[in-house]
Amino acid sequence: MTAAEAQPILDLMLDGSSKGFPQDCPATRLGDVGGLGLRVTRGDLDYPVAVLKRSALAHNAAWMAEFNRRSGASLCPHGKTTMAPQLFQRQLADGAWGITLATMQQVRVAYGHGVKRILLANEAVAPGAIRWLQGALDADPGFDCTCLVDTPEAVARLEASAQGRRPLPVLVELGIAGGRTGARGIPAALAVARAVRASARLQLRGVECYEGIVATQDPAADRARIREWLAGLGELARQCDAEGLFETGCVLLSAGGSAYFDLVVQILGEVRLSLPQRVVLRSGCYFAHDAGLYQRFLALLEERLPEPLRMERRLLPALEIWGQVLSRPEPGLAFLGLGKRDAGHDAGLPVPVRSCRPGAAPLPAPGSWRITVLYDQHARLELPADAELAVGDLVGCGISHPCTTFDKWQVLYEVDDDYQVLGAIRTFF
Amino acid sequence: MTAAEAQPILDLMLDGSSKGFPQDCPATRLGDVGGLGLRVTRGDLDYPVAVLKRSALAHNAAWMAEFNRRSGASLCPHGKTTMAPQLFQRQLADGAWGITLATMQQVRVAYGHGVKRILLANEAVAPGAIRWLQGALDADPGFDCTCLVDTPEAVARLEASAQGRRPLPVLVELGIAGGRTGARGIPAALAVARAVRASARLQLRGVECYEGIVATQDPAADRARIREWLAGLGELARQCDAEGLFETGCVLLSAGGSAYFDLVVQILGEVRLSLPQRVVLRSGCYFAHDAGLYQRFLALLEERLPEPLRMERRLLPALEIWGQVLSRPEPGLAFLGLGKRDAGHDAGLPVPVRSCRPGAAPLPAPGSWRITVLYDQHARLELPADAELAVGDLVGCGISHPCTTFDKWQVLYEVDDDYQVLGAIRTFF
Repeated sequence: MTAAEAQPILDLMLDGSSKGFPQDCPATRLGDVGGLGLRVTRGDLDYPVAVLKRSALAHNAAWMAEFNRRSGASLCPHGKTTMAPQLFQRQLADGAWGITLATMQQVRVAYGHGVKRILLANEAVAPGAIRWLQGALDADPGFDCTCLVDTPEAVARLEASAQGRRPLPVLVELGIAGGRTGARGIPAALAVARAVRASARLQLRGVECYEGIVATQDPAADRARIREWLAGLGELARQCDAEGLFETGCVLLSAGGSAYFDLVVQILGEVRLSLPQRVVLRSGCYFAHDAGLYQRFLALLEERLPEPLRMERRLLPALEIWGQVLSRPEPGLAFLGLGKRDAGHDAGLPVPVRSCRPGAAPLPAPGSWRITVLYDQHARLELPADAELAVGDLVGCGISHPCTTFDKWQVLYEVDDDYQVLGAIRTFF
Repeated sequence: MTAAEAQPILDLMLDGSSKGFPQDCPATRLGDVGGLGLRVTRGDLDYPVAVLKRSALAHNAAWMAEFNRRSGASLCPHGKTTMAPQLFQRQLADGAWGITLATMQQVRVAYGHGVKRILLANEAVAPGAIRWLQGALDADPGFDCTCLVDTPEAVARLEASAQGRRPLPVLVELGIAGGRTGARGIPAALAVARAVRASARLQLRGVECYEGIVATQDPAADRARIREWLAGLGELARQCDAEGLFETGCVLLSAGGSAYFDLVVQILGEVRLSLPQRVVLRSGCYFAHDAGLYQRFLALLEERLPEPLRMERRLLPALEIWGQVLSRPEPGLAFLGLGKRDAGHDAGLPVPVRSCRPGAAPLPAPGSWRITVLYDQHARLELPADAELAVGDLVGCGISHPCTTFDKWQVLYEVDDDYQVLGAIRTFF
């Protein structure tokens, strides 16, 4: 929030008014949190607290780097998932080509924290936002920001507000009938591309789609539909190329949420143009991964992988929410101080994965423990009547859908494998 | 967030990295936002933006004040709903007895912004949090904070960490079988009350329950169950009184979410003790109200009201989320830049209530317009094929469940009836 550029993240002061920070600890500079000697499992923090496991983040980063080394694609991870510039910088250091974002406010946060190549995977329609973008591009020759267009009207709209020196690079978005944004079908998308070519201020840099929008409960049908859609994106690129519509030295072919990126690299990797090209994957959830929705998606993805892309290990869930038992009012019931304000609940409820008495070593949570209801600030944990879980004990939960969990935290705590706090990660939602 | 005490809210600087703030406007002090001459319906802000209608807030505050004037209850509104100290101060100025909160982090935020009477409507179990509370009570004779206990073990736990001068005031929480926290039944709750009386450091100030936990789809059954539970709370108070367990000059009888507070004031208002008493209502959603869940709850509540409590007007929805049309890819489809990151979706999706071309007067949204899917950053708006809604147009949406919408905004914009921005409201989630 609030004037992201104004203060370096590490200089922000934290105290007990920030979720997770110990209540009985003096206000501390965010950059000094790793030196406090805090351990999540010793009860040193305030609960609930959001925890990122450094080893799992590093593993997932290496996994994705290896996947893209084999696939030849470039990673432009979706930053909307974490909105954490500290993690963006880590992703860039790990070789990411740029950072993808969903709104101009998100672009502002990333650019304000030094991200110089941004893919705004959305239409830019607000005149004020377009003016800001144009101004930033003109003022900073090192800033590279590409956005989407899906109708000739959107092209005209961008052009009307982009009154600057540098051209605005755009990708034509190909949609699907009944889907989300994007031109419906190749002829419509081609008309948009021609409008970009004809415009004085826009520059056609490539084509784009978001294949994840068609996901249903039928993996085989999804696979077929996504393959066809991605093949259509390749065909659109070929037709744009044949008409000489691209105004770039390297055509971008971009797709890829976090569930079908294997199909993206395979199908877009086969496209052949007269110009150099780059397949740009936008997966954002690979980094934190989860213990729910994306765990299921990745299991299906792994089954689909052909031999050259088959990975030896799996992505690991890096994000956990730890809550404290506030009440054990009945033998088979515990209530954790952890609710909808703390964990995503749109794609499954949190899953207990570990528990401990503060100070003791955490043990795996029995499979019989289930969070069955999430209230605003409480979780209802059902467990066997003889379960050893007392008021004050700590329960670590895996989550489902990182995007709707990160956004409930302004500060997350990065830990080692013993849950010792190594540092703090700030988000800007 | 982050060191709430460090900086006055009005001095916070806002820029385009804060959701809703205009992208092409220089960074501005939060306290000066009302002087920028912004109008939501003219497209002056960045979208999505969260809007609070000042007249509706004032109306709802007056409604609740009148309700409690008639009922004789004191209002201690649940601050978790908004987590906005500026609104807490308004509620206190409107006569609220104190502010209710759900976690110690929330207590820190409110206390850090000058709230001196707090009801922590939850068990306090973390030693560090209890130590902070004890330290704050000892350091500030004007600070009054009461929390809940629901087992003798919780009493012992509080006592072990509360090593200060002032006693810790507590309420015994009465629960219900299968419900949430709280002692199961009067004998169990009475045992907790006796443990408090026997403790050297705790002080029994009253009794409490949260009746909303039993809500089902059957209003008649809910009503009967809640009446019985509230009557039980009164009986618990009478037995504590008869045993001389209260250590206070005025016994607090507290209950009341935002759906059944009529039953609370009626049933707890009939309790007769040997000591003075105060019925403390904790409703939090009345202030912003909504166009969904609480609108339905309040319609049922109004049907239940006996003549002396019958109110002339209804609560008004004060909170709207405005999004911009990013794409009109098919005649019957529009996509707004407004998603799960911007509006609650746990109790119904946002409902279009108004729309306009930027600069034109907003018109009521036709009832045929429906948001049918909320993605992370988009809303799918289905509408008749001939609907006049273009890319760039603005759509204002009512929401369902204020608690899960406020928490998606760090800054909301307060507007007059013409959507002229009067000021900005900061939250601390």
